[in-house]
Amino acid sequence: VSLEQLFHPRGVAVIGSTARGKLGYALIEQLLAGGFLAVYAINPKALGAMSAPGFSRLRDIPDPVDLAVIASPASTVAGVLEECGIAGIKAAVIITSGFSEAGNAAAEEEIKRIARDYGIRFVGPNCAGIVNTHHKLFPTLETRPPPGVTALVTQSGALGGAVLSWAQEQGLGFSKFASYGNGADLAETELLEYLADDPETEVVALYIESVRDGDRFRRAVHELTRIKPLVVIKAGRSQAGRRATLSHTGSMAGSDAVYDAVFRQSGAIRVANVEEMFDLCKGFVSLPPIPGRRLAIVTNSGGPGVLAADRAEVIGLKVVEPSADVKEKLARFLPGHGAFGNPIDLTVEGTEEGYRRTLLAMLEGESGYDAALAIDVGTPYLASLSLARGIVAAADATGKPLVANFMAGETVASSLPFLQEHGIPHFATGERAVTVLGRMVSYQEQKEGKRPLPEPAPPAVTLPPSPILEPQAMQWLAAQGIPVPPFRFAEDEFQALQACREIGYPVVMKVVSPQILHKSESGGVILSICDDEGAHNAYRSIRSRLPAALGVLIVPMIREGKEVLIGISCDPQFGPVVAFGLGGIYTEVWRDLSLRVAPVDLVEAREMICGISAYPILAGVRGEAASDLEALAEAIVTVSQLPFRAPEIEELDCNPVFVLPRGLLVGDVRIIPSKVEIPPIAQHP
Amino acid sequence: VSLEQLFHPRGVAVIGSTARGKLGYALIEQLLAGGFLAVYAINPKALGAMSAPGFSRLRDIPDPVDLAVIASPASTVAGVLEECGIAGIKAAVIITSGFSEAGNAAAEEEIKRIARDYGIRFVGPNCAGIVNTHHKLFPTLETRPPPGVTALVTQSGALGGAVLSWAQEQGLGFSKFASYGNGADLAETELLEYLADDPETEVVALYIESVRDGDRFRRAVHELTRIKPLVVIKAGRSQAGRRATLSHTGSMAGSDAVYDAVFRQSGAIRVANVEEMFDLCKGFVSLPPIPGRRLAIVTNSGGPGVLAADRAEVIGLKVVEPSADVKEKLARFLPGHGAFGNPIDLTVEGTEEGYRRTLLAMLEGESGYDAALAIDVGTPYLASLSLARGIVAAADATGKPLVANFMAGETVASSLPFLQEHGIPHFATGERAVTVLGRMVSYQEQKEGKRPLPEPAPPAVTLPPSPILEPQAMQWLAAQGIPVPPFRFAEDEFQALQACREIGYPVVMKVVSPQILHKSESGGVILSICDDEGAHNAYRSIRSRLPAALGVLIVPMIREGKEVLIGISCDPQFGPVVAFGLGGIYTEVWRDLSLRVAPVDLVEAREMICGISAYPILAGVRGEAASDLEALAEAIVTVSQLPFRAPEIEELDCNPVFVLPRGLLVGDVRIIPSKVEIPPIAQHP
Repeated sequence: VSLEQLFHPRGVAVIGSTARGKLGYALIEQLLAGGFLAVYAINPKALGAMSAPGFSRLRDIPDPVDLAVIASPASTVAGVLEECGIAGIKAAVIITSGFSEAGNAAAEEEIKRIARDYGIRFVGPNCAGIVNTHHKLFPTLETRPPPGVTALVTQSGALGGAVLSWAQEQGLGFSKFASYGNGADLAETELLEYLADDPETEVVALYIESVRDGDRFRRAVHELTRIKPLVVIKAGRSQAGRRATLSHTGSMAGSDAVYDAVFRQSGAIRVANVEEMFDLCKGFVSLPPIPGRRLAIVTNSGGPGVLAADRAEVIGLKVVEPSADVKEKLARFLPGHGAFGNPIDLTVEGTEEGYRRTLLAMLEGESGYDAALAIDVGTPYLASLSLARGIVAAADATGKPLVANFMAGETVASSLPFLQEHGIPHFATGERAVTVLGRMVSYQEQKEGKRPLPEPAPPAVTLPPSPILEPQAMQWLAAQGIPVPPFRFAEDEFQALQACREIGYPVVMKVVSPQILHKSESGGVILSICDDEGAHNAYRSIRSRLPAALGVLIVPMIREGKEVLIGISCDPQFGPVVAFGLGGIYTEVWRDLSLRVAPVDLVEAREMICGISAYPILAGVRGEAASDLEALAEAIVTVSQLPFRAPEIEELDCNPVFVLPRGLLVGDVRIIPSKVEIPPIAQHP
Repeated sequence: VSLEQLFHPRGVAVIGSTARGKLGYALIEQLLAGGFLAVYAINPKALGAMSAPGFSRLRDIPDPVDLAVIASPASTVAGVLEECGIAGIKAAVIITSGFSEAGNAAAEEEIKRIARDYGIRFVGPNCAGIVNTHHKLFPTLETRPPPGVTALVTQSGALGGAVLSWAQEQGLGFSKFASYGNGADLAETELLEYLADDPETEVVALYIESVRDGDRFRRAVHELTRIKPLVVIKAGRSQAGRRATLSHTGSMAGSDAVYDAVFRQSGAIRVANVEEMFDLCKGFVSLPPIPGRRLAIVTNSGGPGVLAADRAEVIGLKVVEPSADVKEKLARFLPGHGAFGNPIDLTVEGTEEGYRRTLLAMLEGESGYDAALAIDVGTPYLASLSLARGIVAAADATGKPLVANFMAGETVASSLPFLQEHGIPHFATGERAVTVLGRMVSYQEQKEGKRPLPEPAPPAVTLPPSPILEPQAMQWLAAQGIPVPPFRFAEDEFQALQACREIGYPVVMKVVSPQILHKSESGGVILSICDDEGAHNAYRSIRSRLPAALGVLIVPMIREGKEVLIGISCDPQFGPVVAFGLGGIYTEVWRDLSLRVAPVDLVEAREMICGISAYPILAGVRGEAASDLEALAEAIVTVSQLPFRAPEIEELDCNPVFVLPRGLLVGDVRIIPSKVEIPPIAQHP
């Protein structure tokens, strides 16, 4: 309800000086210019500005006011919020800066407390304001965008403002805009939750440097992307970028790879920069859903067609040859003896009618392509506008998604507004057009394959007492349903020999000691023990090197199967994360790892397995037997629930896991419990 | 000399109809409009056009004419060239299409022959013409670009035209433009050779789909990039793109990875699309050479700064923290208690003076950064133009490279022309600006490290007679100076046993047979033979499985070292290519291979070794001994010369090569001779 008052207030009070050049004055000017007339100026001298009457206290305003826009000095904001509470105003936009971002965390805590006490919801402080074009509401200093169906939520006010300026230039309209600044109250997550249900918003764009409540954020994104696309820029990918983020917002940025995992799992589309965000919003706003990956390219010059086809392959679109059916249709009006490829180059002979008929033949009917890119490499001697007409006619007749790349400059200047008016998005290069289509298909696919987020299992088990030695860890893991090989713990040489015989040669002997972290490196692991003599020697070798050992663990020597690792670690923002990859140097050297926020379901686990580059090795290269990938997927699912079943787990490493032609076995496991309760992440140190 | 006449003719004859709307008319109109006045119209009726007088024959023109621009029908072109020859005209631009690109190879051969006979050099046919702005020469139908220092050579006329239109809009000037169409005579290579020496050209941009003479091309690029940068788009990267290229130009495209190798080795900068080409040309035209990789970012909003820093890390620039020295300078005028990072966020408080002083402090002096990016996230309440002034002042005072990203739209509209006038290139996003800087540094580094291209060794040796069995191949390889382990060939069991003892256990036994290609898969390789009994069993096993074998090869079992592969294959465009990677599945699965056109020198070989992702494995991970990388580099150099020393080699595979802590040994080698002389690549089938 409070967000309703934020975006649909009956009246707006602007708190701050109305002297010319002051924030308060500028905000009133902008509100009035945007067409919102119920504006009231609040300042000690009760001075009005333009048509807005002035009052010295909020409670003096005779008309209903739902939103306070606060631009008065930082020291006054707490008092103003108190006043809002007394006057019954439940929503505020705090433009004023000088809070946690300037090291003044106490002042921010105070305004949070007051807002909580009075049930006030607010954006800011230190923000660039909000916009609701459909309510003619512009309490912001940024450019007023034209109305549209895209909403923009941004952690950086200035970047948001730049996007609005750009949008104005490019004709992209907005439904809502919210810059939440320090995010002391409302921030990315609640705004996304609101926008998911906002009937005026069809596409959401988000700029973040960090998130507050990781779990709620990813649930919000998951829900939102069931209904409408979310295009995200997450800054702070690099070391340098991260440093800047820290100093900018004073908040802690999670590992970038985990953010990637979150976006992938929850269905958001991550882009690298504002240009890509723009392109994608243009596509979503203008085009129908893209049913599949087969792309037709029609051009009047080979070069740009080839470049677009190159890009299509990278982004996962299929620039396949026309079917026999389509070729037959093309042959009715195109020269070329039926030898039509894709891209189709109509050459400089391409006319309005040529574009229209070619695109129709490519797109129409069941067997038609899923989408098309039409390129006009505008030259002074071609009538670009007539080609645009042909393209629009084809789009209208087929209802299929069609994008355009009209190059360049003056020669195509008249075509671009025509295309835009007729709902054909155009892009500066064919590569950018193709990138948009590829990402839109991926969104469509995730939407259609959407499943509920898997729920964490309830806490059910405790860990063995620390330090958790390998025998205890193996036993515990087996009890959780993860297969481990038979093993024996032996404290002396006699027991060890006995154990080796019971397990059956060949065996592996490993040191058991709470002091030894790197067993192999310290000579504590002996492989391929083949007989009693080997067992004697192995035991004595371990004892003499590592006299402090508690004993040895004996397991069968596993020689078949592929070695992989399944691990759990804890992300400060998003909690337990499950990782999968090939073991050993593979993962390290090639960084070839699938990462997901835990828990995952079977479908996600299968995608993790297919998602590593080394997947062909598991699937079986060169006629080798395939590994039991279904058992592997099940193990990943089980491991991903362990940190919830046993919340003491801080880290867990099954490495190696031997994936056999049938089933799997965990060769080694390490469990690190969280000794101390991790305190909640401080937002504003 | 002929190219001189092409680009600096005294007079130009346009051959073709001068009726309104015809090519001939349009060309004359364009030439005159561009300011070139010595234009003559040639057509059967001797009709002039505008101020150009008409003649029916070239030889009738009373004034000196050096260039014929041919736009008459394809069937007449041969006759026109004859006439040129008779009239002493040595340069031609053949706009007319309908030659090899339309399946008419014979007509193209004929005009090539006539041109050769008369010593005429021409561009085309099927091309968009040429431009020399400094000679006011515009025999083209494309947009007339403003004069400048960038030259554009393009295989696709229409794409070239689009670039010119775009350039006009963006204010990028051109020195020369050449669209060579089918490239029947002059094409990419000779045009690059010409431009290398052209004093009016400082930057060269090239669009190609294929090249003709690979060796000469890469030598031309190598020479050009010693003097000036070359920015290349090579289309046809993808399968789909390749198909389109084939049908577009009728010429054969080499493997894309080989093109990558060629550009890397010869110093060209490959970009993916026209936008990147543009950005880079803008950078090269405006900026001084960039001395190093340390980048300063100064912004008035955190977000865009972070995004630019993210991109900098990807492109290899170092957004390092300011040195103590710089911090001290900053502390003199900036608030923040000396805690300055990079990016430096001046916030909305950033002024002209703030930008100027901050940039000065970051850039000036020996210890200053190598380059800077200044970001203004233009908002309606900031005076963008004054920030631009501060930036220009800093650039002028330091002489250091400075780029700008002013976002966006109306709010910065007045700043962009100001920046441009003052030689500060600006880009739509900070990421694009940073990408340009990164690539410029790479160009600078290759220029400074430039070495002569290694020369191929003269033919000196012959291969053993075919089929080349492994013992012969090993012996031959050893004779070329590549270390191989001791080996014995044995025809019967007694010899085999003897051989095993001579080599010394453990050994490997391998089948020798011209019929068996995959020795391991067919059970023809037995590893780790430890004693006489093992040798007996191994011999019998091979004999019984593979009765047709000629015998067995016995080599020592090598258990240390890293396995790599060094291979030679033949590229249709560029000849022998040398490949290096880890052996086995590594290379296949991760496509982790270094590729270079052969031969390579030691420096290049070392770069090949460092260039694979798996390099850390060779360098020694986890405290392992390092491998002898210098011996490996020497072996790569030697192998890269083998196809020249022994030109019969079509393919050669040393796999595995065991790189030892000291030295290396080739474990297996396969040599495939070229049975038949490969016919020269047909250009126009």
